Amino acid sequence: MSGATVESVKLAGMVEDGLGAVERAMLDVTDSEVAVLRDASRHILGAGGKRIRPRLLLLSYLALGGRELERAAKPAAAIELMHTASVVHDDINDHGVLRRGLPSVNALWGRTFALLTGDFLFTAVYELMAPYHDLNIDLAKAATALVEGETLQASAVKNNTFTREAYMRIIALKTAALFRAASTIGAKLASAKETEIHALADFGYKLGLAFQIVDDILDMVADEDSLGKTSGLDILQGRGVATALHDANGNGNSSASDPLASIRQKLMEDDTIERARLEAGQLVDSAIADLALLDDRPPKAALVELARQVVKREN
Amino acid sequence: MSGATVESVKLAGMVEDGLGAVERAMLDVTDSEVAVLRDASRHILGAGGKRIRPRLLLLSYLALGGRELERAAKPAAAIELMHTASVVHDDINDHGVLRRGLPSVNALWGRTFALLTGDFLFTAVYELMAPYHDLNIDLAKAATALVEGETLQASAVKNNTFTREAYMRIIALKTAALFRAASTIGAKLASAKETEIHALADFGYKLGLAFQIVDDILDMVADEDSLGKTSGLDILQGRGVATALHDANGNGNSSASDPLASIRQKLMEDDTIERARLEAGQLVDSAIADLALLDDRPPKAALVELARQVVKREN
Repeated sequence: MSGATVESVKLAGMVEDGLGAVERAMLDVTDSEVAVLRDASRHILGAGGKRIRPRLLLLSYLALGGRELERAAKPAAAIELMHTASVVHDDINDHGVLRRGLPSVNALWGRTFALLTGDFLFTAVYELMAPYHDLNIDLAKAATALVEGETLQASAVKNNTFTREAYMRIIALKTAALFRAASTIGAKLASAKETEIHALADFGYKLGLAFQIVDDILDMVADEDSLGKTSGLDILQGRGVATALHDANGNGNSSASDPLASIRQKLMEDDTIERARLEAGQLVDSAIADLALLDDRPPKAALVELARQVVKREN
Repeated sequence: MSGATVESVKLAGMVEDGLGAVERAMLDVTDSEVAVLRDASRHILGAGGKRIRPRLLLLSYLALGGRELERAAKPAAAIELMHTASVVHDDINDHGVLRRGLPSVNALWGRTFALLTGDFLFTAVYELMAPYHDLNIDLAKAATALVEGETLQASAVKNNTFTREAYMRIIALKTAALFRAASTIGAKLASAKETEIHALADFGYKLGLAFQIVDDILDMVADEDSLGKTSGLDILQGRGVATALHDANGNGNSSASDPLASIRQKLMEDDTIERARLEAGQLVDSAIADLALLDDRPPKAALVELARQVVKREN
């Protein structure tokens, strides 16, 4: 193997070790004496998920010269738990019964316990982050943005105001802000320079936008088996990228026997989805350009690869 | 006026100023651009509430020699918002339609937005506390305890295991932990000695237990007008102090036409409520004894008065 390849293999091993530490941190902090909270947390965490946010944090940390992955693991775990909390609450509001290929917390434990499990995951984030003094404001602001994004989305659906502008604002708040917090916190933990922190922040933000656009495309075109969650919820509720790119209202209170199928049919007939994919690709290209100031070492290559995967993924 | 009286009047003014700063901090941090979140937060905050937790924090701070009330106001606001978040979510799970004398967030904005408003208040807590580095772990642990207590309560109701032991564990987690965080954080902000912090922690904890017992008594005996929230929910759901002191199950799935009235009737006939009041009184006495090591100055007298009010209050 060439030197670069050896270094890449070593990096991959470090990242896997780091992600292992993230899993342990998430299980540790959710190991409540209250059985329902512990069990429901283990259920949703054990169901997997892509762990893209903690991976982004760890790679950002390594790319800026960080060397103590154990220290970065807890903030990475906190960010994944923040996302998980929002997923659990989202499944209550959307009546989602399938998540990550398994029944949702809502479906298994009912609404009351799902609400409390989401709250518990929020407080676990807070506990995990408490020792990381200066980093709390980054995650706190992203957490607020996330809830604001979810709320704007629910409002837009309710009030029939799901425009392209509203869509972009929603995904910036509900997804991109947390991605930005992940890359920013990774860079700050590595004691990076201001310019580097700024570059990583932009990278994470654009990646988050692209990720959500792809997520919404998959929600429309994939079947539940490959998606692992109740699909078509978004489109039926009048949101999602296609609706937005059309600047039109796609509220699915259709009287057709299978409104989802007919909406999908319509989307396939024009180039809505293709245009959305293009937009996601452009965002990823722009994100990768933000990394120009980083040394061409394996962690940078891994960040580029992570970004490319975001647009290539099938679930 | 005597010197002591002048000092007391001055103290009362300072506390009122501090509570004013708490209100401003709560409104500032919840001033979201997302209308629903801002309006629902203002609604529940504007409805009042006793503000006993921030008052406890401010008085603990002053009693230990703290002089910058503005600095103590934000943590005090965070603790009140934490309590408010749990109240908003509690009203979803309990279908409470009246809170602080006004319709609940749930009743006005519906379940989805009430859930998101509670989440938003949680993230506001996190944002407010971010600059208070070392104090975050105290509030984070109390926040986790609060959610654990609420969950144990819901589990006990569901599984018919509402014993006295379960009741005491529940109120310790869901109420006393946050009271303890308030007095502890107040003491720490004033750079108190370890022994003083410990004494204030014990004081807050016992006060919290007493407060919840009295709350549960009021929930059983008061009418909605004086209580300002949907009353009898607790008893109908098989929880509350009387049930617990009886070590019996009071699950209210009764087929009687007015199960609440008949349960109240039964409670009035024996001395359950009287015994609960006695227990709350003993806890308050013990809490006051914990303050022995403090100087006999107005802030200590105010803490004693606050404790006495907890058992005397009518709503």
